[in-house]
Amino acid sequence: MIMQKILAINSGSSSFKFKLFEIPSEEVITSGIAERVGIDGSFFEIKYQGQKQHFDVAIPDQEAAVNLLLHHLTEMKIVADLAEIKGVGHRIVAGGEDFKESTIIDETNLQKIYDLAQYAPLHNPAEARGIEAFMKMLPGVPQVGVFDTSFHTSMPMINYLYSLPYEYYEKYGARKYGAHGTSVRYVAHRAAELMGRDISELKLIVCHLGSGASVTAVQGGKSLDTSMGFTPLAGVTMGTRTGDIDASLIPFLMKKLNLSSAQELIDIFNNKSGLLGISGVSPDMRDVEATFDQPRSRLAHDIFINRIVRYIGQYVFEMGGLDGLIFTAGIGEHSIDIRDHIVRGLDFYGARMDWDANIASGERFINTPESTVKLLVVPTDEELMIVRDVIALTK
Amino acid sequence: MIMQKILAINSGSSSFKFKLFEIPSEEVITSGIAERVGIDGSFFEIKYQGQKQHFDVAIPDQEAAVNLLLHHLTEMKIVADLAEIKGVGHRIVAGGEDFKESTIIDETNLQKIYDLAQYAPLHNPAEARGIEAFMKMLPGVPQVGVFDTSFHTSMPMINYLYSLPYEYYEKYGARKYGAHGTSVRYVAHRAAELMGRDISELKLIVCHLGSGASVTAVQGGKSLDTSMGFTPLAGVTMGTRTGDIDASLIPFLMKKLNLSSAQELIDIFNNKSGLLGISGVSPDMRDVEATFDQPRSRLAHDIFINRIVRYIGQYVFEMGGLDGLIFTAGIGEHSIDIRDHIVRGLDFYGARMDWDANIASGERFINTPESTVKLLVVPTDEELMIVRDVIALTK
Repeated sequence: MIMQKILAINSGSSSFKFKLFEIPSEEVITSGIAERVGIDGSFFEIKYQGQKQHFDVAIPDQEAAVNLLLHHLTEMKIVADLAEIKGVGHRIVAGGEDFKESTIIDETNLQKIYDLAQYAPLHNPAEARGIEAFMKMLPGVPQVGVFDTSFHTSMPMINYLYSLPYEYYEKYGARKYGAHGTSVRYVAHRAAELMGRDISELKLIVCHLGSGASVTAVQGGKSLDTSMGFTPLAGVTMGTRTGDIDASLIPFLMKKLNLSSAQELIDIFNNKSGLLGISGVSPDMRDVEATFDQPRSRLAHDIFINRIVRYIGQYVFEMGGLDGLIFTAGIGEHSIDIRDHIVRGLDFYGARMDWDANIASGERFINTPESTVKLLVVPTDEELMIVRDVIALTK
Repeated sequence: MIMQKILAINSGSSSFKFKLFEIPSEEVITSGIAERVGIDGSFFEIKYQGQKQHFDVAIPDQEAAVNLLLHHLTEMKIVADLAEIKGVGHRIVAGGEDFKESTIIDETNLQKIYDLAQYAPLHNPAEARGIEAFMKMLPGVPQVGVFDTSFHTSMPMINYLYSLPYEYYEKYGARKYGAHGTSVRYVAHRAAELMGRDISELKLIVCHLGSGASVTAVQGGKSLDTSMGFTPLAGVTMGTRTGDIDASLIPFLMKKLNLSSAQELIDIFNNKSGLLGISGVSPDMRDVEATFDQPRSRLAHDIFINRIVRYIGQYVFEMGGLDGLIFTAGIGEHSIDIRDHIVRGLDFYGARMDWDANIASGERFINTPESTVKLLVVPTDEELMIVRDVIALTK
């Protein structure tokens, strides 16, 4: 019997990550990346049976990356026949208001993904080109778009609308879209399973804390509110991103820094701010924590905690309570210290950390029995979520 | 016996408001305004013994306004001699990090007020010119600066620092300064008195809700955090101001609206957004509430409530509890409906409104005995606070 396989693709502006899953086992057979797509110094890496192979090779575009991948899948006999691939799921950054859930991509909505590029200029075009390449090379195989924003389309208008002239929303789509939706959806549902509760009756907050970081209020299984905004710049402090700031700083700093375009400053807000900007050391929390002898590292750490606790507070009030607080993504899964500090910020609310559980690893509860709030670590798995969406849409 | 008198001055970019207090009675003897200073159509109004007099008169600058005021004080025999005026207190918008408390203004710190104009380009220069005029015309009479930002200089660095490159703070003073400090200080202390508690042991939140609106966490009598930011644009939704938005909207909307300068957009964020922008009706909450048949008015109202409840939530978590929630300023003192909705947002936390007290008027508690949080309405009085600061500094 030929095993069925599904690919999960996560394309960045110049990268192309893949994971091939066997179904129904959901086992990852191979994974890898094409890096520096369209740039000098590109390479392709693929992991299979514990071995990593590296190829320095020209990868001028997403189509070349797809070609390389399919070539190696057969060449390395990872698949006997490309026909084993029953579907391809693609992470898409911006789904706007068009894509309220994962969707099989045809020519019409492929064009929509291109049109949404104004909300994610670096990501959506690359992602759309990846889909196009697969459509061409694996004709008849369903291509599924899994949108970072879909999970947040359940937000009520009160929460997603900015206090701007209303026509900016109607004409230009200026509103909160959020991000990390696929991850948050996965861990929220997983947390409900672990809690043995129906997600429809739960008030959850998901702290997705990686180099990008967000806090999301999940009420009744739906995103009620989220810290990221029109773009992933807003919300809490991140590795290199400011999170929330006073917009008046833009003309003020443009003058001080002698910048002629607002976009230049937004690039600084996205790439040179956050933990990196405050600490001057690194965007990586591990480096920040390793340099606590430097006051600015301590400050970056403390600000990171403060902003997360404040978002948790606003969402507890917005939901009118909290059943479970979930940590996921790089920092959320691995930083004992950050989890500890965040939970201390909820001490007055009755949240109690179990220290032994906190220093353990894997999917688990980390609260004591007395805690008024369940505390969980749930490693995120966006690719698995993508694959499950492909299965659901193609069976 | 000649009564001693103190003037409180509140200058805007093109207005000049005054109140003359008798001390120690703290009675307001006269008050009025010079409007459209430096603009065509200027006029001067003064209220005395229940009568208002109006003069259409050229008022080219703050000095002319001061001249007019002093002329009418003697002309109308409000004072027998200008020597009765023992001090003049001036509200100053931006005190930066220099002015941690109200201060007698000499030539040196007058210059500092001018230098701080970069943080309040429309206000500080007009305010400084007003002080200069009084120095010239009432030589020897102490001029006292009372800064909107002073009360917030107690904020810890974790709360006032943005997650920007650190040198933007060091070199340019890019940080949260807040506003409404004089009002918040007054009502917080008054609330503690009414509660019969020492303010040093209290966790309070002050909702100063006027056409400008802010939420401040006051812990132990000191400002711990506040919703306004580098400028009064940030924080909650206001009459015409956006409050918090994603800074990425600036280059996006500049392109859509074909604007060449970020400042033009910030002007829209300050003057055409908020309740006005969402509702399309008015920046005035009374007009918004009067047009609930229009969905956008309802939306503006609900967003206004949501943002305030969210700020209350973050500050409850930041302080680790809440003893008293205080409403002040136009909307805070007069909108029964807004107070009701905000307190409903705190229902899960145990806040309970006494409906009869809510619809009453004046300084009062509006919570039921069972409420876990004291709820108060305290009419603000910035001028009285200014006058008390003058007394304290000149006795």
